[in-house]
Amino acid sequence: MNYAERIARVRDRMTELSVDALLLSVGSDLPYLIGYEAMPLERLTMLVLPRAGDAKLVIPALEAARVPSYDLVEVVTWNETDDPVALVASMVAGAGSLAIGDHTWARFVLALQNACSAATFRAANDITASVRMVKADDEIAALQRAASSVDAVAAAMRDRPFAGRREIDIHRELVDRMLELGHQKANFAIVAAGENAASPHHEPGERVVNEGDIVLCDFGGTMDAYCSDITRMFHVGEPPLEIRDMYAVLHEAQERGVQAGVVGASCESVDFASRSVIDAAGFGDLFVHRTGHGIGTEAHEDPYMVQGNTRAIEAGHAFSVEPGMYLPGRFGMRLEDIVVATIDGPVRLNNAERDLAVVG
Amino acid sequence: MNYAERIARVRDRMTELSVDALLLSVGSDLPYLIGYEAMPLERLTMLVLPRAGDAKLVIPALEAARVPSYDLVEVVTWNETDDPVALVASMVAGAGSLAIGDHTWARFVLALQNACSAATFRAANDITASVRMVKADDEIAALQRAASSVDAVAAAMRDRPFAGRREIDIHRELVDRMLELGHQKANFAIVAAGENAASPHHEPGERVVNEGDIVLCDFGGTMDAYCSDITRMFHVGEPPLEIRDMYAVLHEAQERGVQAGVVGASCESVDFASRSVIDAAGFGDLFVHRTGHGIGTEAHEDPYMVQGNTRAIEAGHAFSVEPGMYLPGRFGMRLEDIVVATIDGPVRLNNAERDLAVVG
Repeated sequence: MNYAERIARVRDRMTELSVDALLLSVGSDLPYLIGYEAMPLERLTMLVLPRAGDAKLVIPALEAARVPSYDLVEVVTWNETDDPVALVASMVAGAGSLAIGDHTWARFVLALQNACSAATFRAANDITASVRMVKADDEIAALQRAASSVDAVAAAMRDRPFAGRREIDIHRELVDRMLELGHQKANFAIVAAGENAASPHHEPGERVVNEGDIVLCDFGGTMDAYCSDITRMFHVGEPPLEIRDMYAVLHEAQERGVQAGVVGASCESVDFASRSVIDAAGFGDLFVHRTGHGIGTEAHEDPYMVQGNTRAIEAGHAFSVEPGMYLPGRFGMRLEDIVVATIDGPVRLNNAERDLAVVG
Repeated sequence: MNYAERIARVRDRMTELSVDALLLSVGSDLPYLIGYEAMPLERLTMLVLPRAGDAKLVIPALEAARVPSYDLVEVVTWNETDDPVALVASMVAGAGSLAIGDHTWARFVLALQNACSAATFRAANDITASVRMVKADDEIAALQRAASSVDAVAAAMRDRPFAGRREIDIHRELVDRMLELGHQKANFAIVAAGENAASPHHEPGERVVNEGDIVLCDFGGTMDAYCSDITRMFHVGEPPLEIRDMYAVLHEAQERGVQAGVVGASCESVDFASRSVIDAAGFGDLFVHRTGHGIGTEAHEDPYMVQGNTRAIEAGHAFSVEPGMYLPGRFGMRLEDIVVATIDGPVRLNNAERDLAVVG
C-alpha cells in the first residue's frame, strides 16, 4: 500500500466521520501517511490534510532540507519569528471538525483550539487506527524482517555470559545488536534480573546478574519504519523446580493466546485464552497486565488484546501475545511473540527458541 | 533546591494565576518536580498537583514498582481495565482552571477536557517555566558535569579518523562515548558532512566522509537528569580559505553572543549580538535560525534567544549560544556552547577547543 492509497483511505474515513481536516505532528500517523517523521521539538511540524483539496506540510524552515520532495504534499515553511499555529489555523479556516494526532504536544493542542475556536477537536486515532490496524502484505513483510532481526539477537544472547554483568551492560549489548542487525532505532531494551523481573517495565540499572538469577529481556526497535518487540527469559545456571514449573505454565499460556488469534474472534478472547491457563494453575493474581498490543509503525497501537475489547480480529492485524507472572520481591517472567492474523490462522513472526534458556 | 521547594514555588505560581490543579504526564515537568519520568506509552501516568492538598501520582499498576517511595506524593495505581482519565477527573472535580503538561499526548488532553467539561485548560508551561528557568547552584553543577562530559567527547574526536567513515558510524561513536562518559541517555547526535551540513537538523545517514569535507557534530544527552548540548566543527584536511574566513566570522559571532548574555539584558539581545557579526560580514541570509535556547532538565526549554523575546536575562538562566551559516548544496557550520548568566557575567559551561579542528 503506497502513501497515496493510505491517504485515500484516511480521507474515506474522514468523510464517514464528517471530519474536515486532519492535523498531524509528532507520532506515527505522519510517517505512516507521508514517510516523514516530525522532530519532537518546540518548533511545530504539522501536516494539514483536508478531506478534499491539497495537503500541506507545515515545517520549520531550518528543517526543510530534511523533507523528501513530494508530489502529494505541498511543503510550507515558517521562519523563527513566524507563528506556526496561526499559519495552520489559516489553512483550516471555516472547518467545523478537526482531528488532531494523538501524540501532538498539549501546548499545540491548546493553542490550536484557541486559534480555531469555532471547530471541535477529536483524536486522529478515530480516523487513522482502523486504517493502520490492517496491515498490507508489504507491511507484514517489514514486520517479519524486524521480527527476524530481534530473533537473531535473542538467539545470540543464549551463548553470551550473563553472570557478573550489570543489567545496563546487557541492555547496551541488546541495543548495539539491534542496530547492527538492521534496526535504525532501538526503542527499548528491558533487562530485569531476579527480583527486578517482578517489575514488568523495569528500568535496567546497576544490578549485577548472579548465579541462580532469572533474567527477563524484552526489547524492540524500529527497522525500515516498522517495529519489533520480543521477550525471552534466561536463567543463570539450572533453574529450580518452582521456576521450571511456572515457566511451563507461561509457555502454555502464550501458546494458547497465539492460537486464539483467529480471524473473527474477539481481541479479548486472546487475553482470556492466555489468562485461563495461568488462572487454572493458580497464578491468576500474578498476571497483572493485558495479554498484548497491536504493533506496526508504532510499538504499541490498536488493537489491544485486553478484557473489554470486543473488536473482531481481522486478517492483517498484527499484535503481541505476552502473558507474564510477577512475584514482587522474588522474580518474574514473560514470554512474547508478534503474531499476524491470517485467513489460514495465526502466524508467529518471531521464531527464536521459546524455552527458558540456561546461560552462564 | 529539593523537590519540596520546587513544588512550593510551583504552587505559588498557581496561586498567582488562579490555577486549581496542575496535571503532568510525559515531559520534563514531572521529573523536575518529583524525580519520576512517565513512560511515553498509551497507559496514562499523571501527577495531579492541586494548589493546596495532597498531590497524587496516577500510574498504571504494572509500573508501580518503578516509582520511588515518596513522602510528598501519594501513588494511586490503576489496573488494565480501569479508566485512568475518569480517575484523574474525579480528583479535580469542581476545579475551574487546570494546567496541563506541555508534552501530554493530545488523546489525553481531549479526553480530560471531555471529562472535566466545566474547567478551562491552559499550558503548564505558564506555571513551570518561570520556576525551571532559574537554575539553583546544584542544577548549574549538574549542567556543568554534563557539559564537561560532552567536552571530553569533543576533545576525543579531534584524534579520530573521519575520512572513509559514514555519518552514521560517527553518530554511533558519539552516542557510545556520551554513554561511556556518564550520560544515561543520548538525546541526539547530528553528524553532517559536506553539503549535508547545510541542513541544520540533518539526520546522519550513509554519506561517507571524504577528504576535503567539513563535518558538523552537534550532540547532547541527559546525565543525572540534566542535559548537555554542544556543536563542534571538523575539517578533513586543511580547510580552504573561504571556509577559514567564514569560520572566523562564526567564531566571533559566537563569542559576541556569549558576551551579550548578561543579567538584565534581553534574551533577544544575545541573538542580535551574534547576528550583527554575521550580518556585517555579508552572510546574514545564511543564518536561518535563532541563536539559542534554554537548557536544563529538557534539551530545549525557556528562555529562547530569539528576536522578539524581550524577557530580561536573570542570574541562573542557562542557554545555548549557537550561531550558524548554511549554504544549501555546499556546506554549513555552527558553533555552540552552553552559557550560564551570573551576576559576574556570562560563564561558559563548555570549554572544548573552539577552533575548526583539522582531522584525518
